[in-house]
Amino acid sequence: MPSTDRSPSAQRAPRRQARGVRTRETILASAVDIASVNGLEGLTVGSLAAQLHMSKSGLFAHFGSKEDLQLATIEVARQIFIDKVTRPAIAAPKGLPRLWGLINQWIVLVEKRVFSGGCFFSAASFEFDGKRGVVHDRIAAIMREWMDVLTRAVERAQKAGHIGANVNPMRLAYEIHGIAMGAHWAYQLLDDRQAYSRARATVLEKLRSIATPGSPRLP
Amino acid sequence: MPSTDRSPSAQRAPRRQARGVRTRETILASAVDIASVNGLEGLTVGSLAAQLHMSKSGLFAHFGSKEDLQLATIEVARQIFIDKVTRPAIAAPKGLPRLWGLINQWIVLVEKRVFSGGCFFSAASFEFDGKRGVVHDRIAAIMREWMDVLTRAVERAQKAGHIGANVNPMRLAYEIHGIAMGAHWAYQLLDDRQAYSRARATVLEKLRSIATPGSPRLP
Repeated sequence: MPSTDRSPSAQRAPRRQARGVRTRETILASAVDIASVNGLEGLTVGSLAAQLHMSKSGLFAHFGSKEDLQLATIEVARQIFIDKVTRPAIAAPKGLPRLWGLINQWIVLVEKRVFSGGCFFSAASFEFDGKRGVVHDRIAAIMREWMDVLTRAVERAQKAGHIGANVNPMRLAYEIHGIAMGAHWAYQLLDDRQAYSRARATVLEKLRSIATPGSPRLP
Repeated sequence: MPSTDRSPSAQRAPRRQARGVRTRETILASAVDIASVNGLEGLTVGSLAAQLHMSKSGLFAHFGSKEDLQLATIEVARQIFIDKVTRPAIAAPKGLPRLWGLINQWIVLVEKRVFSGGCFFSAASFEFDGKRGVVHDRIAAIMREWMDVLTRAVERAQKAGHIGANVNPMRLAYEIHGIAMGAHWAYQLLDDRQAYSRARATVLEKLRSIATPGSPRLP
């Protein structure tokens, strides 16, 4: 077991490995930021090396190709999204509050500029939607996952009796997703400071219009 | 006057100019297509020259810089949008039918794949929303113009008595814009063939819910 072997070389190996992991994490944190502003295609090994004051060869040791770097960057962005959006939303009571939480936390994530360039996945989606390959496929898979989370949240709100049975879960999921994505677009492109309060008001109005009398109150 | 001067050199100049305009149009038609798939940053003089079987220097004679090429491409895309969306929509009766026409023609434009890569301006928006400069500014100005067209269409539908006075025109404009943009996203990225029929149903349901009893019937 490595933990009982106190020889210097045995100690060096895990330490070097831990440093490698830290460096990889540092690199990918910058990569997510650069990609959110310049796009995943604008995420060059050169731009990343310059920002991190590293050599290009040092970076290539971590990521064999630009595609590997893009894929690793996407996974980090996905993890941030889960930590900041999905997980806090799931802490809210089941049903309508949880559905609202998912959309609201997504708005909060972008509002707080967790990604410098706005919504990482909206940008990545439009950047890769006309392309083919593993990067496109991974972005599409994560976005399907997200739409499934929203659709299931609507279904659960329906099962909990918070939303009328006549609501089509997938249609509602796409409707509120579109409204929130429209807000990211307006804030980021048009510098529209009312974008998020308007989107929140629109989504809340929509959810209240389909809530049953027995549903918990929304904010 | 050039039209009465029959000397060969005088005749050659306008003809050469006309050929120049034609070539410029041909180049820009390809440029719009490439940019809609690969982004405006992916629109390199090299990729364009290869597609058109032209020399790079021939292209540089038409467009001094990549930025000039990007700006000219954006103007052509804007003109296509006006010809295919704004103009046909304005042919519909004033009020609610015209508002619906604007959103519906936008959906039709993308559905018919007028731009190979989906919605040219949604893609350009997310590509340039984190950047600064004349290209960003031009895209933002055109998108403000579009949101103004939608907002004014809501206001006119209200003045015509088709929509209740309690509706906030800008909020409604952003709401239906978000729903349609969400459909472009789902169709293009997720290959979701129900995206457009779902978006149409959602927007029509929304418009019907705020239409006054005296409003013309929507489809």
